[in-house]
Amino acid sequence: MSADNQQERLDADWIVGFVDGEGSFHVAINKIPKMTLGFQVLPEFRVVQHERDEKILQKLKGYFGFGEITVNRKDRHGIRKEFRVRGLENLNRLLKFFQDNPLKTSKYRNFKIFAEIIEAMNNKEHLTKEGLRKIAELASMMNRQQDRVSKILRDYTPDARKSEDIVRPL
Amino acid sequence: MSADNQQERLDADWIVGFVDGEGSFHVAINKIPKMTLGFQVLPEFRVVQHERDEKILQKLKGYFGFGEITVNRKDRHGIRKEFRVRGLENLNRLLKFFQDNPLKTSKYRNFKIFAEIIEAMNNKEHLTKEGLRKIAELASMMNRQQDRVSKILRDYTPDARKSEDIVRPL
Repeated sequence: MSADNQQERLDADWIVGFVDGEGSFHVAINKIPKMTLGFQVLPEFRVVQHERDEKILQKLKGYFGFGEITVNRKDRHGIRKEFRVRGLENLNRLLKFFQDNPLKTSKYRNFKIFAEIIEAMNNKEHLTKEGLRKIAELASMMNRQQDRVSKILRDYTPDARKSEDIVRPL
Repeated sequence: MSADNQQERLDADWIVGFVDGEGSFHVAINKIPKMTLGFQVLPEFRVVQHERDEKILQKLKGYFGFGEITVNRKDRHGIRKEFRVRGLENLNRLLKFFQDNPLKTSKYRNFKIFAEIIEAMNNKEHLTKEGLRKIAELASMMNRQQDRVSKILRDYTPDARKSEDIVRPL
């Protein structure tokens, strides 16, 4: 059965379940001096698996028709790979999928904030100071990062030199 | 959408995806002196979530109509809960579900071995020395535990005093 399944196209409900378990939506805000405001907003969707399950990542990529598979990290447990989606065009298509097929865990809340950030970027708000602050605030509301990002936000100024990586949800 | 979903019954494909991500099948073999052979075979299915997602565990329990929800562990990240299925009768029903709805990741292989152990227990093989050894060998083939359990198996005798917990996949 498993062997047959290797050829099968994934099912949308299966993908939602798998992403409810293994997916993550996050938004990094990186200091890039050459950019207008000095910061780059980098939204990203990721599903990480041990390399033994790289096939399922390939199937995810095949289902969506975009994204890439790269090494996530290597450690004593072996190599972990990730299916990663970046770039507004692809992320907008990804949002459409998860709007049509909503997540069922608390990850849904994260997704909603992520979608709001993408929407702001569609409107080019990340190119203004006010927009950048709004995005950083939204990012601070995403799960697990609240304490850390709140602290970063407290000291946040778009011109600050110190924070190379002011919002980096894991 | 999320709020509506709270009331919705889970979908089988979603469950498979979620279990491909978050589920685990494992078999502990514990030393229990009062038992005939001195060992108890304890197969278990588990899905662990942060307590913020206890609702989804309740829905899993509701879908299957068996199993229980207990605390998995408490640490600095908060409380983790688990949906846990034990006992041959319920595990046989669980196997039926995953036979009808096969896992798509390498967890499928683990499931197959788990199913073989349950089958052996249905036939009461765990009550014989030969059966117990066979089950321990099957358990040693389950993911991630190969090194550890192989080492245990090498020294394994059903009468040994030392190993309180000879096979304890995580």
